[in-house]
Amino acid sequence: MKITLIGVGLIGGSMALKLKAKGLASYVYGVDQNQNHLEEAKSLGIIDEISTLENAVLNSDLIIIAIPVDATRKILSNVLDLVDDRKTVMDAGSTKEGIVNSIEDHPHRNRFVAFHPMWGTENSGPKSAISDSFSGRAGVICDRENSADDALETVQKVADALDMHLIYMKAADHDVHTAYISHISHITSYALANTVLEKEREEDTIFQLASSGFSSTVRLAKSHPEMWVPIFKQNKENVLDVLNEHISQLRKFKSALEKDNDELLEELIRNANKIRGILGEK
Amino acid sequence: MKITLIGVGLIGGSMALKLKAKGLASYVYGVDQNQNHLEEAKSLGIIDEISTLENAVLNSDLIIIAIPVDATRKILSNVLDLVDDRKTVMDAGSTKEGIVNSIEDHPHRNRFVAFHPMWGTENSGPKSAISDSFSGRAGVICDRENSADDALETVQKVADALDMHLIYMKAADHDVHTAYISHISHITSYALANTVLEKEREEDTIFQLASSGFSSTVRLAKSHPEMWVPIFKQNKENVLDVLNEHISQLRKFKSALEKDNDELLEELIRNANKIRGILGEK
Repeated sequence: MKITLIGVGLIGGSMALKLKAKGLASYVYGVDQNQNHLEEAKSLGIIDEISTLENAVLNSDLIIIAIPVDATRKILSNVLDLVDDRKTVMDAGSTKEGIVNSIEDHPHRNRFVAFHPMWGTENSGPKSAISDSFSGRAGVICDRENSADDALETVQKVADALDMHLIYMKAADHDVHTAYISHISHITSYALANTVLEKEREEDTIFQLASSGFSSTVRLAKSHPEMWVPIFKQNKENVLDVLNEHISQLRKFKSALEKDNDELLEELIRNANKIRGILGEK
Repeated sequence: MKITLIGVGLIGGSMALKLKAKGLASYVYGVDQNQNHLEEAKSLGIIDEISTLENAVLNSDLIIIAIPVDATRKILSNVLDLVDDRKTVMDAGSTKEGIVNSIEDHPHRNRFVAFHPMWGTENSGPKSAISDSFSGRAGVICDRENSADDALETVQKVADALDMHLIYMKAADHDVHTAYISHISHITSYALANTVLEKEREEDTIFQLASSGFSSTVRLAKSHPEMWVPIFKQNKENVLDVLNEHISQLRKFKSALEKDNDELLEELIRNANKIRGILGEK
Protein backbone atom coordinates (compact mmCIF):
# COMPACT_ATOMS: atom_id res chain seq x y z
CA MET A 1 0.00 0.00 0.00
CA LYS A 2 0.98 3.62 -0.43
CA ILE A 3 1.75 5.57 2.71
CA THR A 4 1.93 9.22 3.68
CA LEU A 5 4.42 9.83 6.45
CA ILE A 6 3.75 13.13 8.23
CA GLY A 7 6.90 13.62 10.27
CA VAL A 8 9.97 11.83 8.95
CA GLY A 9 11.91 11.72 12.23
CA LEU A 10 12.88 9.01 14.70
CA ILE A 11 9.46 7.33 15.07
CA GLY A 12 8.03 7.87 11.59
CA GLY A 13 11.36 7.08 9.96
CA SER A 14 11.78 3.86 11.93
CA MET A 15 8.25 2.77 11.05
CA ALA A 16 8.69 3.52 7.33
CA LEU A 17 12.02 1.67 7.10
CA LYS A 18 10.48 -1.47 8.56
CA LEU A 19 7.21 -1.25 6.61
CA LYS A 20 9.21 -0.94 3.39
CA ALA A 21 11.52 -3.80 4.34
CA LYS A 22 8.50 -5.99 5.05
CA GLY A 23 6.87 -5.03 1.76
CA LEU A 24 3.80 -3.53 3.40
CA ALA A 25 4.69 -0.05 2.15
CA SER A 26 5.12 0.06 -1.64
CA TYR A 27 5.65 3.82 -1.80
CA VAL A 28 6.11 6.47 0.91
CA TYR A 29 5.30 10.18 0.54
CA GLY A 30 7.11 12.35 3.03
CA VAL A 31 5.56 15.47 4.54
CA ASP A 32 7.47 17.53 7.09
CA GLN A 33 7.98 21.18 8.04
CA ASN A 34 11.73 20.58 8.14
CA GLN A 35 13.13 20.59 4.60
CA ASN A 36 16.51 19.21 5.74
CA HIS A 37 14.80 16.27 7.39
CA LEU A 38 12.82 15.59 4.22
CA GLU A 39 15.98 15.50 2.14
CA GLU A 40 17.78 13.33 4.70
CA ALA A 41 14.80 10.97 4.82
CA LYS A 42 14.82 10.68 1.03
CA SER A 43 18.53 9.95 0.86
CA LEU A 44 18.18 7.38 3.70
CA GLY A 45 15.43 5.55 1.80
CA ILE A 46 12.80 6.36 4.42
CA ILE A 47 10.60 8.12 1.87
CA ASP A 48 10.35 7.86 -1.91
CA GLU A 49 9.02 11.34 -2.59
CA ILE A 50 8.82 14.71 -0.88
CA SER A 51 5.25 15.89 -1.20
CA THR A 52 2.63 18.41 -0.14
CA LEU A 53 0.12 17.17 2.40
CA GLU A 54 -2.77 17.27 -0.07
CA ASN A 55 -1.02 15.38 -2.85
CA ALA A 56 0.34 12.78 -0.45
CA VAL A 57 -2.96 12.04 1.27
CA LEU A 58 -4.81 11.96 -2.06
CA ASN A 59 -2.49 9.23 -3.33
CA SER A 60 -2.15 7.15 -0.15
CA ASP A 61 -4.01 4.29 1.51
CA LEU A 62 -2.54 4.95 4.92
CA ILE A 63 -1.49 8.21 6.56
CA ILE A 64 0.88 7.95 9.53
CA ILE A 65 1.22 11.07 11.70
CA ALA A 66 4.43 10.99 13.72
CA ILE A 67 4.97 14.55 14.94
CA PRO A 68 4.78 16.22 18.39
CA VAL A 69 1.37 15.81 20.03
CA ASP A 70 0.49 19.52 19.84
CA ALA A 71 1.20 19.53 16.10
CA THR A 72 -0.86 16.34 15.71
CA ARG A 73 -3.85 18.06 17.31
CA LYS A 74 -3.46 20.98 14.94
CA ILE A 75 -3.21 18.92 11.76
CA LEU A 76 -5.39 15.88 12.39
CA SER A 77 -8.71 17.49 11.54
CA ASN A 78 -7.27 18.81 8.25
CA VAL A 79 -6.00 15.36 7.36
CA LEU A 80 -9.39 13.79 8.09
CA ASP A 81 -10.99 16.43 5.85
CA LEU A 82 -8.91 15.00 2.98
CA VAL A 83 -9.66 11.29 3.43
CA ASP A 84 -12.43 9.06 2.20
CA ASP A 85 -13.73 5.70 3.44
CA ARG A 86 -10.88 3.77 1.82
CA LYS A 87 -8.11 5.58 3.68
CA THR A 88 -6.81 5.03 7.20
CA VAL A 89 -5.14 7.63 9.42
CA MET A 90 -3.06 6.66 12.46
CA ASP A 91 -0.85 8.65 14.79
CA ALA A 92 2.03 7.67 17.06
CA GLY A 93 1.62 10.22 19.84
CA SER A 94 2.50 9.72 23.50
CA THR A 95 -0.73 11.32 24.73
CA LYS A 96 -4.15 10.33 23.47
CA GLU A 97 -7.13 11.97 25.15
CA GLY A 98 -6.53 15.47 23.77
CA ILE A 99 -5.99 14.07 20.29
CA VAL A 100 -9.14 11.94 20.15
CA ASN A 101 -11.23 14.70 21.75
CA SER A 102 -10.09 17.16 19.08
CA ILE A 103 -11.78 15.13 16.34
CA GLU A 104 -14.65 13.44 18.19
CA ASP A 105 -17.27 15.13 16.02
CA HIS A 106 -15.40 14.90 12.73
CA PRO A 107 -17.45 13.09 10.03
CA HIS A 108 -14.42 10.92 9.22
CA ARG A 109 -13.59 10.13 12.87
CA ASN A 110 -13.90 6.41 12.19
CA ARG A 111 -11.03 6.53 9.67
CA PHE A 112 -8.65 7.45 12.51
CA VAL A 113 -6.93 4.92 14.75
CA ALA A 114 -5.27 6.38 17.86
CA PHE A 115 -1.99 4.49 18.18
CA HIS A 116 1.00 4.71 20.51
CA PRO A 117 4.06 2.51 19.94
CA MET A 118 5.90 1.94 23.24
CA TRP A 119 9.35 2.69 21.94
CA GLY A 120 11.52 5.76 21.56
CA THR A 121 15.01 7.01 22.23
CA GLU A 122 16.52 10.27 23.37
CA ASN A 123 17.48 11.00 19.76
CA SER A 124 15.47 12.63 16.99
CA GLY A 125 15.49 13.20 13.25
CA PRO A 126 15.59 10.77 10.31
CA LYS A 127 19.23 9.86 10.94
CA SER A 128 18.18 8.32 14.27
CA ALA A 129 15.63 6.01 12.64
CA ILE A 130 16.25 2.28 13.14
CA SER A 131 14.31 -0.32 11.19
CA ASP A 132 13.95 -2.96 13.92
CA SER A 133 13.15 -0.54 16.74
CA PHE A 134 9.65 -1.73 17.50
CA SER A 135 10.23 -5.49 17.58
CA GLY A 136 8.71 -7.09 20.66
CA ARG A 137 7.27 -3.81 21.96
CA ALA A 138 3.63 -3.08 22.74
CA GLY A 139 1.51 -0.87 20.52
CA VAL A 140 -1.50 0.69 22.23
CA ILE A 141 -4.71 1.34 20.31
CA CYS A 142 -7.14 3.69 22.08
CA ASP A 143 -10.91 3.89 21.82
CA ARG A 144 -11.07 1.17 19.15
CA GLU A 145 -14.89 1.38 19.14
CA ASN A 146 -14.62 4.76 17.42
CA SER A 147 -12.59 3.39 14.51
CA ALA A 148 -13.91 1.48 11.49
CA ASP A 149 -13.14 -2.24 11.43
CA ASP A 150 -11.14 -2.04 8.22
CA ALA A 151 -9.09 0.88 9.59
CA LEU A 152 -8.30 -1.22 12.68
CA GLU A 153 -7.32 -4.10 10.39
CA THR A 154 -4.91 -1.85 8.53
CA VAL A 155 -3.24 -0.78 11.77
CA GLN A 156 -3.12 -4.42 12.87
CA LYS A 157 -1.20 -5.17 9.66
CA VAL A 158 1.18 -2.31 10.43
CA ALA A 159 1.73 -3.63 13.97
CA ASP A 160 2.35 -7.14 12.60
CA ALA A 161 4.91 -5.83 10.14
CA LEU A 162 6.61 -3.90 12.96
CA ASP A 163 6.59 -7.09 15.07
CA MET A 164 4.57 -5.38 17.81
CA HIS A 165 1.74 -6.79 19.89
CA LEU A 166 -1.39 -4.71 20.35
CA ILE A 167 -3.01 -3.61 23.61
CA TYR A 168 -6.40 -1.87 23.68
CA MET A 169 -7.30 0.90 26.12
CA LYS A 170 -9.52 3.91 26.61
CA ALA A 171 -7.62 7.09 25.68
CA ALA A 172 -8.13 8.47 29.20
CA ASP A 173 -6.67 5.30 30.76
CA HIS A 174 -3.75 5.37 28.34
CA ASP A 175 -2.85 8.87 29.50
CA VAL A 176 -2.98 7.87 33.17
CA HIS A 177 -0.77 4.83 32.63
CA THR A 178 1.78 6.58 30.41
CA ALA A 179 2.07 9.41 32.93
CA TYR A 180 3.01 6.80 35.52
CA ILE A 181 5.26 4.64 33.41
CA SER A 182 6.75 6.91 30.76
CA HIS A 183 6.24 10.63 31.32
CA ILE A 184 7.47 10.76 34.92
CA SER A 185 10.68 8.94 33.88
CA HIS A 186 11.48 11.86 31.63
CA ILE A 187 10.89 14.48 34.33
CA THR A 188 13.00 12.42 36.74
CA SER A 189 15.81 12.27 34.25
CA TYR A 190 15.62 15.97 33.32
CA ALA A 191 15.60 16.95 36.99
CA LEU A 192 18.56 14.66 37.69
CA ALA A 193 20.55 16.23 34.87
CA ASN A 194 19.70 19.72 36.13
CA THR A 195 20.65 18.70 39.67
CA VAL A 196 24.05 17.44 38.59
CA LEU A 197 24.65 20.46 36.35
CA GLU A 198 23.73 22.77 39.24
CA LYS A 199 25.87 21.05 41.87
CA GLU A 200 28.81 19.82 39.83
CA ARG A 201 30.38 22.87 38.26
CA GLU A 202 33.38 20.92 37.01
CA GLU A 203 32.06 19.55 33.72
CA ASP A 204 35.22 17.58 33.17
CA THR A 205 34.63 15.78 36.47
CA ILE A 206 31.16 14.75 35.32
CA PHE A 207 32.66 13.39 32.14
CA GLN A 208 35.43 11.54 33.95
CA LEU A 209 33.40 10.08 36.81
CA ALA A 210 30.20 9.32 34.94
CA SER A 211 29.57 5.61 35.33
CA SER A 212 27.27 3.46 33.26
CA GLY A 213 24.72 3.87 36.05
CA PHE A 214 24.64 7.65 35.79
CA SER A 215 24.52 7.51 32.00
CA SER A 216 21.57 5.15 32.15
CA THR A 217 19.55 7.25 34.59
CA VAL A 218 20.24 10.50 32.79
CA ARG A 219 19.78 9.15 29.25
CA LEU A 220 16.25 10.46 28.76
CA ALA A 221 17.40 13.95 29.77
CA LYS A 222 18.80 14.29 26.26
CA SER A 223 15.27 14.22 24.79
CA HIS A 224 14.19 17.41 23.04
CA PRO A 225 11.68 19.92 24.43
CA GLU A 226 9.87 20.11 21.06
CA MET A 227 8.49 16.64 21.76
CA TRP A 228 8.19 16.67 25.55
CA VAL A 229 6.76 20.08 26.46
CA PRO A 230 3.58 19.28 24.48
CA ILE A 231 3.32 15.83 26.10
CA PHE A 232 3.59 17.24 29.63
CA LYS A 233 1.06 19.96 28.81
CA GLN A 234 -1.46 17.63 27.20
CA ASN A 235 -1.19 15.22 30.11
CA LYS A 236 -0.83 17.92 32.74
CA GLU A 237 -3.16 16.62 35.46
CA ASN A 238 -1.88 13.04 35.36
CA VAL A 239 1.74 14.17 35.21
CA LEU A 240 1.27 16.55 38.17
CA ASP A 241 -0.37 13.78 40.13
CA VAL A 242 2.54 11.38 39.67
CA LEU A 243 5.10 14.18 40.06
CA ASN A 244 3.66 14.97 43.50
CA GLU A 245 4.02 11.33 44.43
CA HIS A 246 7.60 11.30 43.16
CA ILE A 247 8.56 14.34 45.25
CA SER A 248 6.95 12.68 48.26
CA GLN A 249 8.97 9.49 47.63
CA LEU A 250 12.20 11.52 47.50
CA ARG A 251 11.22 13.23 50.76
CA LYS A 252 10.95 9.79 52.38
CA PHE A 253 14.58 9.10 51.44
CA LYS A 254 15.55 12.50 52.78
CA SER A 255 13.77 11.95 56.06
CA ALA A 256 15.18 8.44 56.49
CA LEU A 257 18.71 9.75 55.91
CA GLU A 258 18.30 12.82 58.13
CA LYS A 259 16.96 10.73 60.99
CA ASP A 260 19.48 7.89 60.50
CA ASN A 261 16.49 5.61 60.08
CA ASP A 262 18.30 2.64 58.54
CA GLU A 263 15.24 0.43 58.67
CA LEU A 264 13.19 2.86 56.59
CA LEU A 265 16.06 3.37 54.17
CA GLU A 266 16.36 -0.36 53.67
CA GLU A 267 12.59 -0.75 53.36
CA LEU A 268 12.44 1.96 50.67
CA ILE A 269 15.18 0.25 48.70
CA ARG A 270 13.72 -3.25 49.09
CA ASN A 271 10.39 -1.95 47.85
CA ALA A 272 12.07 -0.34 44.83
CA ASN A 273 13.87 -3.63 44.13
CA LYS A 274 10.45 -5.18 43.34
CA ILE A 275 10.62 -3.45 39.96
CA ARG A 276 13.06 -6.18 38.88
CA GLY A 277 10.43 -8.91 39.15
CA ILE A 278 7.74 -6.75 37.55
CA LEU A 279 9.92 -5.99 34.55
CA GLY A 280 10.18 -9.74 34.03
CA GLU A 281 13.77 -10.26 35.13
CA LYS A 282 15.34 -12.73 37.48
CA MET B 1 51.34 -12.13 41.97
CA LYS B 2 49.12 -13.83 44.49
CA ILE B 3 45.93 -12.05 45.41
CA THR B 4 43.45 -12.20 48.25
CA LEU B 5 39.96 -11.27 47.17
CA ILE B 6 37.78 -10.24 50.11
CA GLY B 7 34.31 -10.22 48.62
CA VAL B 8 33.87 -12.42 45.56
CA GLY B 9 30.82 -10.62 44.12
CA LEU B 10 30.20 -8.40 41.12
CA ILE B 11 33.14 -6.00 41.56
CA GLY B 12 35.72 -8.32 43.09
CA GLY B 13 34.76 -11.14 40.76
CA SER B 14 35.01 -8.95 37.67
CA MET B 15 38.43 -7.67 38.77
CA ALA B 16 39.77 -11.17 39.48
CA LEU B 17 38.58 -12.57 36.16
CA LYS B 18 40.40 -9.84 34.25
CA LEU B 19 43.55 -9.91 36.40
CA LYS B 20 43.80 -13.65 35.85
CA ALA B 21 43.16 -13.34 32.12
CA LYS B 22 45.90 -10.71 31.89
CA GLY B 23 48.31 -12.87 33.87
CA LEU B 24 48.73 -10.34 36.66
CA ALA B 25 47.07 -12.65 39.17
CA SER B 26 48.76 -16.04 39.36
CA TYR B 27 46.62 -17.34 42.22
CA VAL B 28 43.51 -15.95 43.93
CA TYR B 29 42.41 -16.74 47.48
CA GLY B 30 38.73 -16.06 48.07
CA VAL B 31 37.40 -14.77 51.39
CA ASP B 32 33.68 -14.09 51.85
CA GLN B 33 31.01 -14.44 54.51
CA ASN B 34 28.73 -16.07 51.95
CA GLN B 35 29.70 -19.72 51.50
CA ASN B 36 27.51 -20.11 48.39
CA HIS B 37 29.23 -17.19 46.73
CA LEU B 38 32.64 -18.69 47.54
CA GLU B 39 31.68 -21.97 45.91
CA GLU B 40 30.17 -20.23 42.90
CA ALA B 41 33.29 -18.07 42.55
CA LYS B 42 35.49 -21.16 42.64
CA SER B 43 33.45 -22.99 40.02
CA LEU B 44 33.43 -19.85 37.82
CA GLY B 45 37.22 -19.64 37.98
CA ILE B 46 37.16 -16.32 39.85
CA ILE B 47 39.14 -17.77 42.76
CA ASP B 48 41.48 -20.72 43.01
CA GLU B 49 41.01 -21.46 46.69
CA ILE B 50 38.54 -20.75 49.46
CA SER B 51 40.52 -19.50 52.43
CA THR B 52 40.45 -17.94 55.87
CA LEU B 53 41.36 -14.26 55.98
CA GLU B 54 44.61 -14.91 57.86
CA ASN B 55 45.88 -17.66 55.59
CA ALA B 56 44.95 -15.70 52.46
CA VAL B 57 46.63 -12.44 53.50
CA LEU B 58 49.73 -14.28 54.75
CA ASN B 59 50.21 -15.85 51.31
CA SER B 60 49.30 -12.86 49.11
CA ASP B 61 51.10 -9.88 47.60
CA LEU B 62 47.90 -7.91 47.03
CA ILE B 63 44.69 -7.86 49.04
CA ILE B 64 41.60 -6.49 47.27
CA ILE B 65 38.64 -5.60 49.48
CA ALA B 66 35.41 -5.49 47.47
CA ILE B 67 32.61 -5.59 50.02
CA PRO B 68 30.03 -3.01 51.19
CA VAL B 69 31.64 0.15 52.58
CA ASP B 70 30.46 -0.43 56.16
CA ALA B 71 32.00 -3.91 56.13
CA THR B 72 35.21 -2.47 54.64
CA ARG B 73 35.49 -0.05 57.55
CA LYS B 74 35.05 -2.92 60.00
CA ILE B 75 37.63 -5.21 58.43
CA LEU B 76 40.29 -2.87 57.03
CA SER B 77 42.18 -2.31 60.27
CA ASN B 78 42.34 -6.07 60.88
CA VAL B 79 43.69 -6.64 57.39
CA LEU B 80 46.37 -3.97 57.87
CA ASP B 81 47.34 -5.68 61.13
CA LEU B 82 48.21 -8.76 59.07
CA VAL B 83 50.32 -7.13 56.33
CA ASP B 84 53.99 -6.26 56.11
CA ASP B 85 55.86 -3.78 53.92
CA ARG B 86 55.81 -6.07 50.89
CA LYS B 87 52.02 -6.35 50.71
CA THR B 88 49.52 -3.92 49.25
CA VAL B 89 45.88 -3.51 50.29
CA MET B 90 43.31 -1.80 48.09
CA ASP B 91 39.55 -1.42 48.32
CA ALA B 92 36.87 -0.73 45.72
CA GLY B 93 34.36 1.20 47.80
CA SER B 94 32.03 3.94 46.58
CA THR B 95 32.75 6.20 49.57
CA LYS B 96 36.22 7.08 50.73
CA GLU B 97 36.48 9.57 53.58
CA GLY B 98 35.09 7.30 56.29
CA ILE B 99 37.30 4.45 55.14
CA VAL B 100 40.57 6.42 55.11
CA ASN B 101 39.72 8.12 58.40
CA SER B 102 39.16 4.74 60.05
CA ILE B 103 42.82 3.78 59.55
CA GLU B 104 44.60 7.15 59.53
CA ASP B 105 46.69 6.25 62.58
CA HIS B 106 47.33 2.64 61.65
CA PRO B 107 51.07 1.82 61.54
CA HIS B 108 50.56 0.16 58.13
CA ARG B 109 48.42 2.97 56.70
CA ASN B 110 50.86 3.43 53.83
CA ARG B 111 50.25 -0.11 52.58
CA PHE B 112 46.65 0.85 51.79
CA VAL B 113 45.53 2.48 48.54
CA ALA B 114 42.00 3.91 48.57
CA PHE B 115 40.57 2.98 45.18
CA HIS B 116 37.19 3.39 43.50
CA PRO B 117 36.52 1.89 40.06
CA MET B 118 33.79 3.88 38.28
CA TRP B 119 31.81 0.89 37.12
CA GLY B 120 29.02 -1.23 38.52
CA THR B 121 25.68 -2.70 37.61
CA GLU B 122 22.42 -3.29 39.39
CA ASN B 123 23.37 -6.95 39.80
CA SER B 124 25.40 -8.66 42.49
CA GLY B 125 27.14 -11.91 43.29
CA PRO B 126 29.88 -13.84 41.46
CA LYS B 127 27.53 -14.91 38.66
CA SER B 128 27.21 -11.24 37.66
CA ALA B 129 30.97 -10.78 37.27
CA ILE B 130 32.16 -9.80 33.79
CA SER B 131 35.82 -9.83 32.86
CA ASP B 132 35.90 -6.75 30.63
CA SER B 133 33.69 -4.57 32.83
CA PHE B 134 36.21 -1.90 33.68
CA SER B 135 37.68 -1.23 30.24
CA GLY B 136 37.82 2.47 29.47
CA ARG B 137 36.46 3.51 32.86
CA ALA B 138 38.10 5.79 35.39
CA GLY B 139 39.63 4.47 38.59
CA VAL B 140 39.93 7.02 41.38
CA ILE B 141 42.81 6.86 43.86
CA CYS B 142 42.30 8.98 46.96
CA ASP B 143 44.89 10.60 49.24
CA ARG B 144 47.81 9.10 47.31
CA GLU B 145 50.27 10.95 49.58
CA ASN B 146 49.35 8.58 52.40
CA SER B 147 50.24 5.45 50.40
CA ALA B 148 53.73 4.06 49.81
CA ASP B 149 55.10 4.50 46.29
CA ASP B 150 55.41 0.77 45.65
CA ALA B 151 51.82 0.21 46.84
CA LEU B 152 50.67 2.88 44.38
CA GLU B 153 52.70 1.19 41.65
CA THR B 154 50.97 -2.12 42.35
CA VAL B 155 47.55 -0.50 42.05
CA GLN B 156 48.69 1.22 38.86
CA LYS B 157 49.52 -2.25 37.45
CA VAL B 158 46.06 -3.45 38.47
CA ALA B 159 44.43 -0.46 36.77
CA ASP B 160 46.52 -1.07 33.63
CA ALA B 161 45.48 -4.72 33.54
CA LEU B 162 41.83 -3.67 33.96
CA ASP B 163 42.29 -1.15 31.13
CA MET B 164 41.30 1.74 33.42
CA HIS B 165 42.79 5.22 33.60
CA LEU B 166 43.59 6.67 37.00
CA ILE B 167 42.36 9.94 38.51
CA TYR B 168 43.73 11.28 41.79
CA MET B 169 41.63 13.11 44.38
CA LYS B 170 41.33 13.91 48.05
CA ALA B 171 38.98 11.43 49.74
CA ALA B 172 36.71 14.28 50.84
CA ASP B 173 36.47 15.62 47.28
CA HIS B 174 35.78 12.14 45.93
CA ASP B 175 32.79 11.81 48.27
CA VAL B 176 31.38 15.18 47.17
CA HIS B 177 31.71 14.34 43.46
CA THR B 178 30.34 10.80 43.73
CA ALA B 179 27.34 12.08 45.71
CA TYR B 180 26.61 14.41 42.79
CA ILE B 181 27.32 12.03 39.96
CA SER B 182 26.65 8.53 41.26
CA HIS B 183 24.82 8.37 44.59
CA ILE B 184 21.97 10.73 43.68
CA SER B 185 21.28 8.68 40.51
CA HIS B 186 20.51 5.71 42.70
CA ILE B 187 18.13 7.63 44.97
CA THR B 188 16.43 9.08 41.88
CA SER B 189 15.97 5.63 40.45
CA TYR B 190 14.76 4.08 43.72
CA ALA B 191 12.28 6.92 44.19
CA LEU B 192 11.06 6.55 40.61
CA ALA B 193 10.46 2.83 41.10
CA ASN B 194 8.59 3.48 44.34
CA THR B 195 6.54 6.20 42.64
CA VAL B 196 5.47 3.90 39.84
CA LEU B 197 4.79 1.02 42.24
CA GLU B 198 2.67 3.34 44.40
CA LYS B 199 0.65 4.85 41.56
CA GLU B 200 0.41 1.98 39.11
CA ARG B 201 -1.30 -0.83 40.93
CA GLU B 202 -1.64 -2.92 37.79
CA GLU B 203 1.72 -4.67 37.68
CA ASP B 204 0.89 -6.26 34.36
CA THR B 205 0.39 -2.78 32.87
CA ILE B 206 3.87 -1.76 34.01
CA PHE B 207 5.28 -4.83 32.35
CA GLN B 208 3.35 -4.28 29.14
CA LEU B 209 3.87 -0.55 28.77
CA ALA B 210 7.44 -0.31 30.05
CA SER B 211 9.49 1.21 27.27
CA SER B 212 13.23 1.15 26.94
CA GLY B 213 13.25 4.66 28.43
CA PHE B 214 11.52 3.59 31.62
CA SER B 215 13.75 0.52 31.93
CA SER B 216 16.83 2.70 31.56
CA THR B 217 15.80 5.25 34.19
CA VAL B 218 14.69 2.62 36.68
CA ARG B 219 17.61 0.23 36.14
CA LEU B 220 19.59 1.27 39.20
CA ALA B 221 16.51 0.72 41.39
CA LYS B 222 17.31 -2.99 41.22
CA SER B 223 20.51 -2.42 43.23
CA HIS B 224 20.59 -4.11 46.62
CA PRO B 225 20.25 -2.29 49.97
CA GLU B 226 23.21 -4.23 51.41
CA MET B 227 25.49 -2.16 49.22
CA TRP B 228 23.62 1.15 49.07
CA VAL B 229 22.37 1.82 52.60
CA PRO B 230 25.98 1.95 53.87
CA ILE B 231 27.02 4.25 50.99
CA PHE B 232 24.19 6.71 51.69
CA LYS B 233 24.97 6.64 55.41
CA GLN B 234 28.71 7.13 55.00
CA ASN B 235 28.14 9.97 52.58
CA LYS B 236 25.12 11.36 54.40
CA GLU B 237 25.86 15.10 54.34
CA ASN B 238 26.85 15.22 50.66
CA VAL B 239 23.93 13.02 49.64
CA LEU B 240 21.45 15.15 51.59
CA ASP B 241 22.85 18.27 50.01
CA VAL B 242 22.36 16.99 46.46
CA LEU B 243 19.02 15.38 47.36
CA ASN B 244 17.71 18.76 48.48
CA GLU B 245 18.79 20.23 45.16
CA HIS B 246 17.10 17.38 43.30
CA ILE B 247 13.80 17.92 45.12
CA SER B 248 14.07 21.61 44.33
CA GLN B 249 14.65 20.84 40.63
CA LEU B 250 11.55 18.63 40.56
CA ARG B 251 9.57 21.43 42.22
CA LYS B 252 10.57 23.73 39.36
CA PHE B 253 8.99 21.30 36.88
CA LYS B 254 5.92 21.11 39.07
CA SER B 255 5.60 24.87 39.28
CA ALA B 256 6.15 25.35 35.54
CA LEU B 257 3.45 22.79 34.76
CA GLU B 258 0.97 24.11 37.31
CA LYS B 259 1.36 27.65 36.06
CA ASP B 260 1.35 26.66 32.36
CA ASN B 261 4.72 28.35 32.14
CA ASP B 262 5.83 26.86 28.82
CA GLU B 263 8.93 29.01 28.63
CA LEU B 264 10.24 27.76 31.98
CA LEU B 265 9.38 24.18 31.05
CA GLU B 266 11.32 24.50 27.83
CA GLU B 267 14.21 26.23 29.60
CA LEU B 268 14.43 23.42 32.18
CA ILE B 269 14.52 20.82 29.44
CA ARG B 270 17.03 22.71 27.29
CA ASN B 271 19.31 23.03 30.30
CA ALA B 272 19.03 19.29 31.00
CA ASN B 273 19.84 18.59 27.34
CA LYS B 274 23.34 20.00 28.00
CA ILE B 275 24.23 16.71 29.66
CA ARG B 276 24.55 15.23 26.15
CA GLY B 277 27.52 17.42 25.31
CA ILE B 278 29.13 16.93 28.72
CA LEU B 279 28.92 13.17 28.42
CA GLY B 280 30.88 13.52 25.21
CA GLU B 281 28.17 12.78 22.70
CA LYS B 282 27.11 14.53 19.54
